[in-house]
Amino acid sequence: MKTKTLSQALKLALCGCCAAGLSAPLVALAAGESSNLSSETWTGKLPIAPFGPFQRVYMPQNAPSFADRIGFPTSWSMAFANRKHNAAFPVESSAAKWLRQGVSWNYAEARAWPLRNKLPFGDKVYGGREAAPVQTQFMGNAVGVAAVDGVIYAESDDMFAYALNAKTGQLIWRASPVANNLMGVPVVVGKSVYLAAGSVSFNFAHVIKYAKTGKTARGEDVSYNGIIALNKNTGKFEWMFMTKGEVMPTPAYANGVLYDSTGAGNIYAINAINGRKIWKTHVGGIGNMDNPVVYKGRVYVGMSVKDYMYCLNAKTGKVIWKQTIKGAFNTGMGDVAPALSRGILVQDSVVNEKVVNGHKTANIAVWAMSTKTGKILWQADMGRGPLPPAFKAGMPMIHNGVVYFGSPVTDIYQARSLQTGKLLWSWHVPHAGPAGAARGAPTYYRGDLYISTGPNVYALDPKSGEVLGVHHIGGRFGIINPVIVGGTIYLGNSWDWVNAIPVSEVNPNYHG
Amino acid sequence: MKTKTLSQALKLALCGCCAAGLSAPLVALAAGESSNLSSETWTGKLPIAPFGPFQRVYMPQNAPSFADRIGFPTSWSMAFANRKHNAAFPVESSAAKWLRQGVSWNYAEARAWPLRNKLPFGDKVYGGREAAPVQTQFMGNAVGVAAVDGVIYAESDDMFAYALNAKTGQLIWRASPVANNLMGVPVVVGKSVYLAAGSVSFNFAHVIKYAKTGKTARGEDVSYNGIIALNKNTGKFEWMFMTKGEVMPTPAYANGVLYDSTGAGNIYAINAINGRKIWKTHVGGIGNMDNPVVYKGRVYVGMSVKDYMYCLNAKTGKVIWKQTIKGAFNTGMGDVAPALSRGILVQDSVVNEKVVNGHKTANIAVWAMSTKTGKILWQADMGRGPLPPAFKAGMPMIHNGVVYFGSPVTDIYQARSLQTGKLLWSWHVPHAGPAGAARGAPTYYRGDLYISTGPNVYALDPKSGEVLGVHHIGGRFGIINPVIVGGTIYLGNSWDWVNAIPVSEVNPNYHG
Repeated sequence: MKTKTLSQALKLALCGCCAAGLSAPLVALAAGESSNLSSETWTGKLPIAPFGPFQRVYMPQNAPSFADRIGFPTSWSMAFANRKHNAAFPVESSAAKWLRQGVSWNYAEARAWPLRNKLPFGDKVYGGREAAPVQTQFMGNAVGVAAVDGVIYAESDDMFAYALNAKTGQLIWRASPVANNLMGVPVVVGKSVYLAAGSVSFNFAHVIKYAKTGKTARGEDVSYNGIIALNKNTGKFEWMFMTKGEVMPTPAYANGVLYDSTGAGNIYAINAINGRKIWKTHVGGIGNMDNPVVYKGRVYVGMSVKDYMYCLNAKTGKVIWKQTIKGAFNTGMGDVAPALSRGILVQDSVVNEKVVNGHKTANIAVWAMSTKTGKILWQADMGRGPLPPAFKAGMPMIHNGVVYFGSPVTDIYQARSLQTGKLLWSWHVPHAGPAGAARGAPTYYRGDLYISTGPNVYALDPKSGEVLGVHHIGGRFGIINPVIVGGTIYLGNSWDWVNAIPVSEVNPNYHG
Repeated sequence: MKTKTLSQALKLALCGCCAAGLSAPLVALAAGESSNLSSETWTGKLPIAPFGPFQRVYMPQNAPSFADRIGFPTSWSMAFANRKHNAAFPVESSAAKWLRQGVSWNYAEARAWPLRNKLPFGDKVYGGREAAPVQTQFMGNAVGVAAVDGVIYAESDDMFAYALNAKTGQLIWRASPVANNLMGVPVVVGKSVYLAAGSVSFNFAHVIKYAKTGKTARGEDVSYNGIIALNKNTGKFEWMFMTKGEVMPTPAYANGVLYDSTGAGNIYAINAINGRKIWKTHVGGIGNMDNPVVYKGRVYVGMSVKDYMYCLNAKTGKVIWKQTIKGAFNTGMGDVAPALSRGILVQDSVVNEKVVNGHKTANIAVWAMSTKTGKILWQADMGRGPLPPAFKAGMPMIHNGVVYFGSPVTDIYQARSLQTGKLLWSWHVPHAGPAGAARGAPTYYRGDLYISTGPNVYALDPKSGEVLGVHHIGGRFGIINPVIVGGTIYLGNSWDWVNAIPVSEVNPNYHG
């Protein structure tokens, strides 16, 4: 490897004189030595002690029966289920009673914090604004779950992934393949479940680099980043595609290929069977939680620092267009994954930083772009407020020509016309808390809208934004979207739990 | 809390107009609201699921017998055993045979990577220069162990602390109180073992802050930092003193008080019994691995960015003097813990950054200061080479008026007169590797010098630097000092193992 060789060359050139305690002039170094990165895909042993705490646990007796798999999606190809981000799966009236009526359970993951605790761990020292995101990013579930064939799959920042029986909440397997946070939605296709390993952090070298160049890399040389494939039934390790920068964004699967962006400014296409690289495009900037979306042979992904939405050819990785929004800053366009429908891409971002009385504030802008050209079709302002910590905008969801999304800057959800951006309604989340609420994508299910934010799940009238019902679960929901299958809503949370709750307990109007 | 209240005030002021989708002018905010940080000490429940992987494991049957405790130190008050950093404990000729002759075992910690693997996990992607420090900082043991009453205590960056039977290598307990790396040497006094929880990383807010102000905070809002007390016999949680910045440095214990520095520029004195704060002094900068040393009522601790050695009154926290070294940069003076003897403090640091053919290089400077005044008594140059990743200098050890220390810039160990700095000898570590070697403090034991670096433990003649023997353990030793009790050398390593090796297997001249 380049660095290795140069480093060794430097040392060989120096050691003679240094041994005498003297400093020496440096010899000229050969430049342009090539890197040997042929083995980005790891299929060997993992650093996990036998019988140790990170060893895989597998309890086949807890797997769902054949009957209890019926009615569920048979795969989960991207974050929030689909390119509209609407994780809603009604079942037929002939489906099993438990599936129609819904089940209720709470599964305590490895770093579970009691649901009855209103404040996150360490709140007194870390402060209300930071303690909740820290708990999410290092112990809790950052995003929603996947529901496939009677199994709920969850990734947690406690460094474990979990497969739970959707009916009973019992553990089927858990695995912690690498010492890193797992911030994605499990992607489940064929016999595999795909995880995204990525650290939200920077090391000191990257702190210095940013100060000097305005460029940085998230997660680089901070733990082990990449995409990991496990056997979906057993949790057994298959391969890891290792990357330098973090892979916090969930990969998107299409036609045998996984697409993802990293904290080192790369976008990758990976063979989903063997984990081998198909192409890599370096676009620069850092990826955060902006999961790529694949649509008609194109990959759409947003990056931060600098803020751009990129459209790439899915076959070749060639950039077709890139687009930015005036005033986008901080992790702006790299936080929010776009939702796509009818040739329109919707995204939002913090814009126009302004310091007011020593406190950072921002607006959130939402906009629609043409998927074909990147042309901005409309743009709207969701209001100004304190700059939120961590994830700084709201994941959009599209249903039937309406886009629904939140803003943690002002703690509101809005509905707007997908075509024109016209505001249909606005709803203010009650008791949002100092870190801001309204980050997760809503779910449209059988005529009503479901939103998980703060410690609650809400049912809203999608036409008016009127609250139809609310259910308190406890803990805190970050970028969590309600995943609804039949009569049950499935949700991870920041307190490190996976929860199942009957739809009817949230929405009194609902009858399974 | 201040932020909370301001944040809420901002939102309340805004929500009316934002609900209509409009941006609003910000109202003036009340300044100077006081913080309520009365509960820095946490004694409640930890976020750990019952029956989960992070739950404490306790196997009392593996504890040493009364007889097998005899001959060991009865406490361990600071990193590297004492202010001279010489972790050497000879036993009497009447001691138990196993203790005199030494034992051999290797204990696989949670993220153990096979010792026979020459390269760290992920080497192909992360590169030889970065992969080893990443493995150390996120999966391995950063520093040496503690040996008390027949038990070996280790902290690992796999997020667990361990108590092992020194004779058998069997697990007595393991515990993972918080989701954070444990980078210190366990301090064992009375009925407690004290751990240092600290993340080496930065979040994006701190990346931006450094670019704007040249100031930053390590570990702040990155996981859960602080000093943790566990029952030394059972691993049971007693309390955690929570801090905003990381506590990578090992605390120093003296007269019922623990002293430590943090990544947020604070130095604390904590009551070792109840975990309550006695005083806090904000000196600025960031602490790295520079463990405080307490000596004659004064606390000595080095900080980075800006680089200073501080001398504080141990009772009051008042700064008595501060001193810096010309050219110190990067994590310089905050990496290395000073060794103290005869009123002289010895430390070293990277100095004089210079880019050569696009590669960063540095010298390492070593110096002696008067503990009384901070006056620099002598200074020497250890040579120039590539800037090492992570820990950037060598922990010094003092024995009998001679100071021994390494340089990962040039991969050498040196011996110098404590009084004058006169070079006595220099030894170049063979096959040092691209991340640099020679970080750990040597140990002087019964007439010979022991050094753990690279995958080996060496015995050297302390008068000449001549190699007397070498033993290959495998893996890689970072800032690891050999801890020698009777006939055994105890060492953690970067591959996440704790190892015991008879002194006689390293040094053919040694007879127990």
